[in-house]
Amino acid sequence: MEIFKTASDMREWSDSMHRAGQTISFVPTMGYLHDGHLSLMEKGASLCSALVVSIFVNPTQFGENEDLDAYPTDIERDLKLIKAKGARAVFLPDKKEIYPENYQTYITLEHLPKHLCGLSRPVHFRGVATIVSKLFNIVRPDAAVFGAKDFQQLQVIRQLNRDLNFGINIIGAPIVRESDGLAMSSRNAYLDPEQRDSALSLSRSCSQAEKMVKAGEKSANAIRSHIKSFIESFPDTRVDYISICDPDTLNEVEEIDTEVLFALAVQVGRARLIDNILIKP
Amino acid sequence: MEIFKTASDMREWSDSMHRAGQTISFVPTMGYLHDGHLSLMEKGASLCSALVVSIFVNPTQFGENEDLDAYPTDIERDLKLIKAKGARAVFLPDKKEIYPENYQTYITLEHLPKHLCGLSRPVHFRGVATIVSKLFNIVRPDAAVFGAKDFQQLQVIRQLNRDLNFGINIIGAPIVRESDGLAMSSRNAYLDPEQRDSALSLSRSCSQAEKMVKAGEKSANAIRSHIKSFIESFPDTRVDYISICDPDTLNEVEEIDTEVLFALAVQVGRARLIDNILIKP
Repeated sequence: MEIFKTASDMREWSDSMHRAGQTISFVPTMGYLHDGHLSLMEKGASLCSALVVSIFVNPTQFGENEDLDAYPTDIERDLKLIKAKGARAVFLPDKKEIYPENYQTYITLEHLPKHLCGLSRPVHFRGVATIVSKLFNIVRPDAAVFGAKDFQQLQVIRQLNRDLNFGINIIGAPIVRESDGLAMSSRNAYLDPEQRDSALSLSRSCSQAEKMVKAGEKSANAIRSHIKSFIESFPDTRVDYISICDPDTLNEVEEIDTEVLFALAVQVGRARLIDNILIKP
Repeated sequence: MEIFKTASDMREWSDSMHRAGQTISFVPTMGYLHDGHLSLMEKGASLCSALVVSIFVNPTQFGENEDLDAYPTDIERDLKLIKAKGARAVFLPDKKEIYPENYQTYITLEHLPKHLCGLSRPVHFRGVATIVSKLFNIVRPDAAVFGAKDFQQLQVIRQLNRDLNFGINIIGAPIVRESDGLAMSSRNAYLDPEQRDSALSLSRSCSQAEKMVKAGEKSANAIRSHIKSFIESFPDTRVDYISICDPDTLNEVEEIDTEVLFALAVQVGRARLIDNILIKP
């Protein structure tokens, strides 16, 4: 498995693979890998002849008071896990390689970030769109795999790919959960045992919302307020948002008469956790 | 010569050229071609095995009160001129192909646009960076040629290419002038005979500024105010800016002790004209 630390080395390798008739699938990560990441790699490996994984904790997608400095890291373990998944190359740049002196170019989307996580994380999707575009240009993948846990991120990247004509096959992979339902996340490492219990409020909210819709509840507000009380019954939780929205535009809905996204973000201790589910009435 | 109207057809052709071991040079234009454009094509043709030219009057780089609707066009003549330069393909999309419904992604640079033309055209370079990035992803060139008349645009594109890792060889080509010195521009078509005389104030200002620096003038302000009076002595002129700045950062300079860019924009009748010259003391 090759490990590239510079954009030019990574790019040169990808170009030579393409010239040799290979196709490249790509899984960008911020490291500290869990089974969710590994499922993305399995999906990627099945799509193309060569899998590339990147590890880069992207500073531009963190706000000023967010957990950039605390973000967990274990590169050695990550590299072993990636190798075990059969990746052909890892792109592992440092910050200066990605954002050199005098860096000044950013990519913004006008509508999708004005919902869900974008409301409390105003620079987040600008950072995501920028780093993903840079990585697309460096790795030159034919396909790229993103987890559905970050549903809004997946929609932002699909839109970005269309709008800027990257021509990449963007694949969304299902949320991977612990046996008790908690969506896997590198940020789960922040949770103490009691908070770990409270974190279950997210996946259980998804199940409850689905049950309410299936039982005929049409009012998004009724579901939102029920779920809010439910989450607040768990210690050490603070609801950021509970959204019932159109899965494409992310606009909030009032009446549930077609498929909706139920999505929520909850601060549990110092971990800001997210989860979501697509629900058909 | 191939003519492609969709991004997918253009992209597929470029990919097949690359697979066949060809290299692609690219000259993006807004059409209504003049000898300046033709010199870019000659340069492009000399760099790679296949030249691609695009024609697209990009609405997102025009402000609300600018000349988008009046911008001159003559596609049939343009195609003949491009063919005569040996181009292998022309990309000729319509607006809906480039900006489909629900389009929402834009690329901005934080510093370079805050100078020169960016001051009176606040959305211009956002539009330029966005369309050029889209065209780069569609055409996939190895090299791209831009005219030095739009010096700020050239610097914006060089920065964009570095920052977003396009990996394209960006080439600046010298300004092409009429025999009396007027920099060639599609917008010269707006000038009546008297305004055509006034338009000479720009190239003559460049020569005068150079002469003053070569004669030992160190004060940028002295040159700016001399040139302003000079231009105002021509009928139907309105100075937008007269800049003496660092060619890389475009920051204004006070003392001229190293190479500077002298650049100006002047409204002559309904044509907003620009010109520039690099001057070494």
